[in-house]
Amino acid sequence: MSRLCVRAFSLSLDGYGAGPDQSLENPLGVNGMDLHQWAFKTRTFKQMFGQEGGETDVDDQFAARSFENTGAWIMGRNMFGPIRGAWPDESWKGWWGSRPPYHVPVFVLTHHPRASLVMEGGTTFHFVTDGIESALQKAREAAGGKDIRVGGGVSTVQQYLRARLIDEMHLAMSPVLLGAGENFFADLNLRALGYARTDRVATCGLWRGCRPLPP
Amino acid sequence: MSRLCVRAFSLSLDGYGAGPDQSLENPLGVNGMDLHQWAFKTRTFKQMFGQEGGETDVDDQFAARSFENTGAWIMGRNMFGPIRGAWPDESWKGWWGSRPPYHVPVFVLTHHPRASLVMEGGTTFHFVTDGIESALQKAREAAGGKDIRVGGGVSTVQQYLRARLIDEMHLAMSPVLLGAGENFFADLNLRALGYARTDRVATCGLWRGCRPLPP
Repeated sequence: MSRLCVRAFSLSLDGYGAGPDQSLENPLGVNGMDLHQWAFKTRTFKQMFGQEGGETDVDDQFAARSFENTGAWIMGRNMFGPIRGAWPDESWKGWWGSRPPYHVPVFVLTHHPRASLVMEGGTTFHFVTDGIESALQKAREAAGGKDIRVGGGVSTVQQYLRARLIDEMHLAMSPVLLGAGENFFADLNLRALGYARTDRVATCGLWRGCRPLPP
Repeated sequence: MSRLCVRAFSLSLDGYGAGPDQSLENPLGVNGMDLHQWAFKTRTFKQMFGQEGGETDVDDQFAARSFENTGAWIMGRNMFGPIRGAWPDESWKGWWGSRPPYHVPVFVLTHHPRASLVMEGGTTFHFVTDGIESALQKAREAAGGKDIRVGGGVSTVQQYLRARLIDEMHLAMSPVLLGAGENFFADLNLRALGYARTDRVATCGLWRGCRPLPP
């Protein structure tokens, strides 16, 4: 059976999954790009944006794995765009241009109905207005036995965690301080919900891996 | 000039510096011991508690460094003991027995005056009732040019950070979820206060350092 997964979800040291004040200029909130530097430098992400090169390190392996065996995505409305309230028209089609990097059905949680949106490259955005369990059911039907990835943002992941519906979550702890934004752990007692950290992988600090500290 | 430092301050992935419901049985709060497993296994800590052996890894280097060049400590009243309100008598002398692991003057922040307490091995507890800046001034006079370490807990460190008095802080991010307790980053915008992460050192994950992921 397909699993519901959170993958490569970046958090700051102080627990923010996005900066404050999301806007067209700051899709990830103010300073939110800082969270994702580990990913942007990888070959996987550079290829996704049509660029050459990129690191092929542990970060790249996590980036690549985050897209593997994914049959459908679920995302919150704010991950899809900066518009709040009713859709003024059909012009907003996501942050990602005509060919989004999903290539599978994507279910967008919203309170405001809208017709499905077929994009190039296999991505279709479906707008789900009747809640997270309905979105999960639709995603499961669409995923063809593959996994379903909850992309974000913070509020959407929290809702699925609180409902104990997430089967596996990979948090990418970025060594930055955001100071403000979308706090991932606020009012979220993962331990009480039954979650525990299973694996961990350290990536390269200033002094790589397990070498002694410099004097 | 001596610096005011936070060293080897353990936090959970979800940002807790101690568990909830501190008591005589749970000096670090419920599940709070989980935060410090990285330290307890080191040679430095084992020696401190009169035991043999222990790891001599990067964690041990950080543990050892956390005590170096320290001329005085400052701690909050809850780090000194579980008693709240006025001191019922002079019987509580800290968690650490007759010979505490400080070996220098320790300034305890409290609203309730109490005579200084001379312990074995060079530790003297002084009780400061007129605020964090007064405690810092007293600690600086006592430190003889060495650094002053703010030991904790969360609230005490936060107060010094908000006053921009901390010169250097080492956070030890422990790969555990606490779910509840003393939230270190709550209402603390370190970025706005001018703090940034400078160095980072990765310790050993399940797959040590920077080796490739297993298949």
